[in-house]
Amino acid sequence: MHEALLEIADDCLVLGHRLSEWCGHAPMLEEDLALPNMALDLIGVARGLYARAGEIEGKGRGEDDLAYFRGEREFRNCLLVERPNGDFAATMLRQLYFGAFMEPFWRAAAASTDDVVRGIAGKAAKEVAYHIRHAGEWVIRLGDGTEESAARMAHAVEAHHRYSGELFESSRAARAAEAAGVLPRRSEMRAEWDRVIGMVFVEAGLTVPEGVFMQTGGRAGLHGEDLGHMLAEMQSVARAHPGAVW
Amino acid sequence: MHEALLEIADDCLVLGHRLSEWCGHAPMLEEDLALPNMALDLIGVARGLYARAGEIEGKGRGEDDLAYFRGEREFRNCLLVERPNGDFAATMLRQLYFGAFMEPFWRAAAASTDDVVRGIAGKAAKEVAYHIRHAGEWVIRLGDGTEESAARMAHAVEAHHRYSGELFESSRAARAAEAAGVLPRRSEMRAEWDRVIGMVFVEAGLTVPEGVFMQTGGRAGLHGEDLGHMLAEMQSVARAHPGAVW
Repeated sequence: MHEALLEIADDCLVLGHRLSEWCGHAPMLEEDLALPNMALDLIGVARGLYARAGEIEGKGRGEDDLAYFRGEREFRNCLLVERPNGDFAATMLRQLYFGAFMEPFWRAAAASTDDVVRGIAGKAAKEVAYHIRHAGEWVIRLGDGTEESAARMAHAVEAHHRYSGELFESSRAARAAEAAGVLPRRSEMRAEWDRVIGMVFVEAGLTVPEGVFMQTGGRAGLHGEDLGHMLAEMQSVARAHPGAVW
Repeated sequence: MHEALLEIADDCLVLGHRLSEWCGHAPMLEEDLALPNMALDLIGVARGLYARAGEIEGKGRGEDDLAYFRGEREFRNCLLVERPNGDFAATMLRQLYFGAFMEPFWRAAAASTDDVVRGIAGKAAKEVAYHIRHAGEWVIRLGDGTEESAARMAHAVEAHHRYSGELFESSRAARAAEAAGVLPRRSEMRAEWDRVIGMVFVEAGLTVPEGVFMQTGGRAGLHGEDLGHMLAEMQSVARAHPGAVW
């Protein structure tokens, strides 16, 4: 059961970390606030889920153990969130893809049989609604922008779309959590995701790719090499001085 | 007049950027939220002040022009905020030093003759009160902690104290803004700063250094070489593609 919470927690931590890589490198001051703000939302959700997963697991592992002391193969995030940032267009498209899945997911999780999950879901649904709006506006502005920006956005779709299918797949752990009513069924988010992406793409002048072979593996711990590099960086401080603050 | 706003805006942007360098490298998840949160507060204040400074200047420069397209010698931040992060102890001490100045400053600025400054001050005073509390707790926890943590905190005091004097100095531009009632007189924050630092240091088992030669120069654009490196990194994306988002 707790593994299903870990999957979503890992999604949020990894994507939050990816966004935080933009810290201080955003192309404008406004985004220097917006990107880390979204990162903080996601890391906040991850903390709540790690704490609850650790409780359910009952082995005394806390949020820092789960975030900093698991190896790459133990991470259960989907592949989409670990994709390198690329340019700003790619970052925003990835955010829209993830948000358009998580928003209906958290709305449905507001009816979870688990009190803690219900609490997390209520707050997260509001946050991710903002992420969709923000990222969606950028996808439209760039897709429907200059020749250069449109080309970059089309390239981002080509690069990321193949990782969207995994969002809707439920691992064995997820199916157990779904059967217990702790988390909603991932496949049920498909219709809303298609609707939101379709709407944004029409305005952005983008085409939803068809017949794309979907890459999966993240839920089984089979990640791209980029995740290893990211974790090495993210975990280095905590691992160098376990229990200390430097 | 607008230069006095730039001085404080630069303080906030530079310190905000320094804090954001911790993004994803914090020693614990809790701080992976707290540090960027403080960074966002500061960058938010900087944006407001840049916008107002640009308006008063009347040459059509906006926040991005002021943040990304001025050189090192045009930055007017005090030296304290540009000091490299060092370890977590040094980062927290620097934050306390700056916050203990800004908190009474913003409280007094709530009576500014400038409407926009008044608005910024009200919000900023609340935010920085939290920064003091957060940083102060860490200074106490580490100063009064293990032998190692106490030594690191004492070292941080030795490294940073010499940059505290500049906080209370008013440049010619600042004196004009003070005379016009736009910004409070910096020297008047001294008593409250001494009180807060003294209180925290007693609990932390730290000694306030005496007879330290105070380094200044930031308000005249004379910075340490670290600022140049920081700006190069911070400004690179915006300068590589002016007006674009990558």
